Amino acid sequence: MLQFGPLRRRAWVALLSQLLRPPRPACTGAVRCHSQVAEAVLTSQLKPHQEKSNFIIKTPKGTRDLSPQQMVVREKILDMVVSCFRRHGGKRLDTPAFELKDFDIAGQFDPMIPDAECLKIMCEILSGLQLGNFLIKVNDRRIVDGMFAVCGVPENKFRAICSSMDKLDKISWKEVRHEMVAKKGLASEVADRIGDYIQCHGGVSLVEQLFQDSRLSQSKQALEGLGDLKLLFEYVTLFGIAEKISFDLSLARGLDYYTGVIYEAVLLETPAQAGEKSLSMGSVAAGGRYDGLVGMFNPKGHKVPCVGLSIGVERIFAIVEQRMKAFGETVRTTETQVFVATPQKNFLQERLKLIAELWDAGIKAELLYKNNPKLLTQLHYCESMGIPLVVIIGEQELKEGVIKLRLVASREEVAIKRENLVAEIQKRLSES
Amino acid sequence: MLQFGPLRRRAWVALLSQLLRPPRPACTGAVRCHSQVAEAVLTSQLKPHQEKSNFIIKTPKGTRDLSPQQMVVREKILDMVVSCFRRHGGKRLDTPAFELKDFDIAGQFDPMIPDAECLKIMCEILSGLQLGNFLIKVNDRRIVDGMFAVCGVPENKFRAICSSMDKLDKISWKEVRHEMVAKKGLASEVADRIGDYIQCHGGVSLVEQLFQDSRLSQSKQALEGLGDLKLLFEYVTLFGIAEKISFDLSLARGLDYYTGVIYEAVLLETPAQAGEKSLSMGSVAAGGRYDGLVGMFNPKGHKVPCVGLSIGVERIFAIVEQRMKAFGETVRTTETQVFVATPQKNFLQERLKLIAELWDAGIKAELLYKNNPKLLTQLHYCESMGIPLVVIIGEQELKEGVIKLRLVASREEVAIKRENLVAEIQKRLSES
Repeated sequence: MLQFGPLRRRAWVALLSQLLRPPRPACTGAVRCHSQVAEAVLTSQLKPHQEKSNFIIKTPKGTRDLSPQQMVVREKILDMVVSCFRRHGGKRLDTPAFELKDFDIAGQFDPMIPDAECLKIMCEILSGLQLGNFLIKVNDRRIVDGMFAVCGVPENKFRAICSSMDKLDKISWKEVRHEMVAKKGLASEVADRIGDYIQCHGGVSLVEQLFQDSRLSQSKQALEGLGDLKLLFEYVTLFGIAEKISFDLSLARGLDYYTGVIYEAVLLETPAQAGEKSLSMGSVAAGGRYDGLVGMFNPKGHKVPCVGLSIGVERIFAIVEQRMKAFGETVRTTETQVFVATPQKNFLQERLKLIAELWDAGIKAELLYKNNPKLLTQLHYCESMGIPLVVIIGEQELKEGVIKLRLVASREEVAIKRENLVAEIQKRLSES
Repeated sequence: MLQFGPLRRRAWVALLSQLLRPPRPACTGAVRCHSQVAEAVLTSQLKPHQEKSNFIIKTPKGTRDLSPQQMVVREKILDMVVSCFRRHGGKRLDTPAFELKDFDIAGQFDPMIPDAECLKIMCEILSGLQLGNFLIKVNDRRIVDGMFAVCGVPENKFRAICSSMDKLDKISWKEVRHEMVAKKGLASEVADRIGDYIQCHGGVSLVEQLFQDSRLSQSKQALEGLGDLKLLFEYVTLFGIAEKISFDLSLARGLDYYTGVIYEAVLLETPAQAGEKSLSMGSVAAGGRYDGLVGMFNPKGHKVPCVGLSIGVERIFAIVEQRMKAFGETVRTTETQVFVATPQKNFLQERLKLIAELWDAGIKAELLYKNNPKLLTQLHYCESMGIPLVVIIGEQELKEGVIKLRLVASREEVAIKRENLVAEIQKRLSES
């Protein structure tokens, strides 16, 4: 395996910070929301006898001051994302420290198989996070370029027209068209031709239809893109997620470096109840293929296949937080399962012996650091911290060789033989 | 709950960066090893009706470039530490953002209960990490100060003599004595008196013995320290860890801010086999009580009880890494459980349908991104990546409604009904 020397390595870090930068926001002001994303980049990590490429996972580091409640929510989201990446063979990197073989690996993945897996991963994560209904828009860089060319957009206006096009999910086509013609100097008949295309969205039938389109089929690169999208739809159908995928000709996304298929997941509705103020959160995940860019750094000019996806963890965090606020949901900041209490004075020794037994059995347990705490104080503490079980030990229990187990939610109390306590707690915890 | 204004807050951050700084190294050159530690600070997070104070957990952020293998090892260590902190009711903070109530909380913990829990946590973590035999040295700041005073050390030499004393686990008493007398100008009879004390170590009987010591018992603060240590030994005995605790009068540690009990965990032997080069790793965890320091920032001068412990995650990482190297152990960088393979051409569709079924059941699965990979390549990949199970689908299997399940380690193959595949895999994974 080749390792980079200091200079080459630095060039790679510069490149990777480009590759791994936040997805281009779909709306102004969204950059901040997307400043922290969890990313998976599929690239070459080939070793002898290995033809498989692995996902490299990169997770955001915390940079904001978060309260313990916020930390819990944020970690649950990250855990969910990382566990999905791992289900798909991902390995985690601390920093973008890539190791690459001699850039002969082009063609190591057959078309659209990893791209389809990226869409599957997005679906699994967004379903798992229960953010409500969502849709993944897909398009292809080559279709966008081909469409612009056959519609007659001058090449030097591609980028400007692209950025107008990107606004179609925020403002009407009439307004977008006005911007293209009045502000960006596009001929109105060219704008109209674009308009006919970019208002289209649909499934594989739209792909088939555009294959027959007399204007678009003149572009070789558009046909290549359509061919790949057809294959992509075949694979996402096998993955059982076709109904979540929408071919959307207005999707552009960072044309600067994407070379093939591009995709962006949007939430379709607010996850909250009717009547609540709507959340317009837009894009929560995005990605695409960028084979060419990595090749630019290859001395032989070889292409290096690369597909990647980013999950907007901070944006998802904001959505979940706002939703929890709206519903008045609370978060436990500790995971304590059992509280060790006593109604009597001079029972510290028994409490300490008992809690050590629980800790040694792997049970998360707490007590108050007082010699003689009041029972009411102890029970109040459990209720306010959401601790589900309390074990209560007193003189009577000690004499009878039992422990009282109190279920905090129902305030029900049962007596359990001292020697069965750990097993009984483990049974109740595994059932809950 | 009081929140700090901008200035107060800044003062706190400054203070906390002091409190949360790495434990003072026991040997020169160890600072770097200890540059990343996982810390738990027990302090006041009191809310109405809550008399309990919670552990605040702080974990190190990655700052080194780590390989995927190193990341796996480092994360396993951190997971182990954090899960232990959580078992003891810890909550995690992203940054040291404390919220404190009016500093009336002094006395919220009765003496030595949380201190004993810190020692229990250290034992659980070091046992859980299987680093080999270890010992936790304990002492008390007041015993050190009292001992110096009754031995006749001038107060302006306390710090210098302390730092000589700290070397007693590296060099002999003869050498330490020479440094005290020749380099630091201590009267030789004073050095001899100190030597009598600091070569002592033992259990609760040593505490009892020093209570009767005619010289040391003249110091009121030494008696206070001994009283607390006696209580500490009572509690660690109830916790079942007394044999791991050694009262060691040569232990000094950051006298700058500790106010009471201090402790430091040391590995007693190399974790490797006899004959292997010995690892002199010294201290791997440390902590103590620092009530006074926080009080300095309190306008009313109230003391704020604080105990904390630090786990030297980077040092432990170095030990584990060196041990794995010595034993030639390898680390899996992915968690993939099942590989989906085929011996035949044109089976991509079946492979994709099958793998989606596994992913949807939460099974970690991979395939090669090729239309027609060779079976040998696929099986080699599984062996080199340590993937335990392979499902093989071909024409014969499809016709018979079965899937071949291959156990990579034994190369055994069994036929399983297609509809039972997920259940059978889950059964085998839960058993392994």
